[in-house]
Amino acid sequence: MKLTYLLSCAGAVLALSGLAAVAVANDDAKPKAASPIYGVTIPDGYRQWELVAPAQEAEPLNELRAVLGNDVAMKAYRDATLPFPDGTILAKLAWKHIQSPEFESASIPGAATTVQIMVKDSKKYATTGGWGFGRFVDGIPADEAQHETCFACHQARVQGHDYVFTRYAP
Amino acid sequence: MKLTYLLSCAGAVLALSGLAAVAVANDDAKPKAASPIYGVTIPDGYRQWELVAPAQEAEPLNELRAVLGNDVAMKAYRDATLPFPDGTILAKLAWKHIQSPEFESASIPGAATTVQIMVKDSKKYATTGGWGFGRFVDGIPADEAQHETCFACHQARVQGHDYVFTRYAP
Repeated sequence: MKLTYLLSCAGAVLALSGLAAVAVANDDAKPKAASPIYGVTIPDGYRQWELVAPAQEAEPLNELRAVLGNDVAMKAYRDATLPFPDGTILAKLAWKHIQSPEFESASIPGAATTVQIMVKDSKKYATTGGWGFGRFVDGIPADEAQHETCFACHQARVQGHDYVFTRYAP
Repeated sequence: MKLTYLLSCAGAVLALSGLAAVAVANDDAKPKAASPIYGVTIPDGYRQWELVAPAQEAEPLNELRAVLGNDVAMKAYRDATLPFPDGTILAKLAWKHIQSPEFESASIPGAATTVQIMVKDSKKYATTGGWGFGRFVDGIPADEAQHETCFACHQARVQGHDYVFTRYAP
């Protein structure tokens, strides 16, 4: 009986080791950090999404940025659909803005700074215009205080464009 | 016999009208303007390609830019493959750089200015590092004199990166 128990324990340990190895090998298996208030996570494959538009943010942030959109977002932009439909996700990537070492008049992306996500779910986020927000630095969500500022700013400035700043750059 | 001829003429005219209607309705059916020297055209669907990186060009051009790459290009970037394989196409989109009317510290794309294309074909473009160049304004290729400057500049400045300025922004 004792031997059986030990063997089954060893089996369980081996099985758990196997699971741990899978979790390390596969990013998708790791639980993802979610933003406070909204529970927004960084979506899989966002870096392969299409470009909505680039932008520049002046000092003190001094960043180059690019907003990418998932298929739902890009269809809405191209069809000029407002409000954006549920399932829209926008990802704003930001990098430090540095002088190109190879071309005097050009400046280019330096280190990545933040990834910011907006997710449209008109039921889940009914009290914030249908949008959930997530701001991440190195994959780690910013704190609750930062997330409390998201919707107030979008609401004050771009209510007429379904709370979205970025327009499609043709 | 005459009637048959007339009828068959009418049929041909109708058939030609039909072809003309198809040509107007479908951009792909129009012959595309090709760049001087290189014969490079603007590739279909380039605006849906993935983002390599954004950039900014200072005065006097004062532009925001984004380089997009086709699937061959993106695979080469992600695998750090140099030189880029044949079939690589890069598209640099440029827009005037204007102040956002909605956010004081942000500047955003204004009117589109140029679309610039680089195509890798190591045989066809053997004398210019394997690259063909095309610079387009409103879809119209710039003149031969402008195209004569492309490779000299890329050769002088980024020979160590297969004549390509733009790096992948993660």
